[in-house]
Amino acid sequence: MEQRVTLITLGVTDLKASKTFYTEVFGWTPLPASDDNIVFFQLNGIQFAIFPDHALAEDAGIDASGNGFRKFSLAHNVRSEKEVDDLIATLKSRGAKIVKQPQKVFWGGYSSYVADPDGNLWEIAFNPFMQLDAKGSVV
Amino acid sequence: MEQRVTLITLGVTDLKASKTFYTEVFGWTPLPASDDNIVFFQLNGIQFAIFPDHALAEDAGIDASGNGFRKFSLAHNVRSEKEVDDLIATLKSRGAKIVKQPQKVFWGGYSSYVADPDGNLWEIAFNPFMQLDAKGSVV
Repeated sequence: MEQRVTLITLGVTDLKASKTFYTEVFGWTPLPASDDNIVFFQLNGIQFAIFPDHALAEDAGIDASGNGFRKFSLAHNVRSEKEVDDLIATLKSRGAKIVKQPQKVFWGGYSSYVADPDGNLWEIAFNPFMQLDAKGSVV
Repeated sequence: MEQRVTLITLGVTDLKASKTFYTEVFGWTPLPASDDNIVFFQLNGIQFAIFPDHALAEDAGIDASGNGFRKFSLAHNVRSEKEVDDLIATLKSRGAKIVKQPQKVFWGGYSSYVADPDGNLWEIAFNPFMQLDAKGSVV
């Protein structure tokens, strides 16, 4: 099995609220394939989707019930500590909930967390040991 | 904010069991930066990590409790329906729990789901509308 992921799908409570967050706060542009049932975004070689949580459970044929911490995080790495500070300031000014203020962390990086409307964690970080190419992909 | 994700981290219950799943069932090779506390894999321009769930919650400074459906899925798209069938047969032979058998789905694709030891969903799918490059990234 090749080492790749092609799509990350978040099962969200309120698709409109999530779409507003990802388009207005993150400032991302949905793909034309998006509609009232699902919204897609093209990222760096992978796609990202927001989809109602009950529909995602139904698609997999599993029980939709679940509470509390969803036990995953997504990271958006940038190229300097200042970029972390600037991005967090921007996201805060647009109404994002800052879960952890930018700070130096034990592994040698500089990290912060913001939450989407469902509490899904996005880490905004600078990792001096991670090399990003021109498109922001990890090399 | 650029449209990218650099790292997906799953908060797992038992790091050894998860490592065995991703290395023995998926057949993936960890990065040298891995240790007894976290295991990293290089994917297509992003990294994937497994990390104890309590440690992930602690890193974000949030409550670690959570139960049931984690409300996200990761997809691994392949290039044909036959590739879906073959990969699911391989994963099943290695002990993976097949949550949904490969089948044609309403959006025009061919899809199945497998679960990791924590029940995290991996969709194994062929999407005739999604173009993959030589490295398996979505173009």
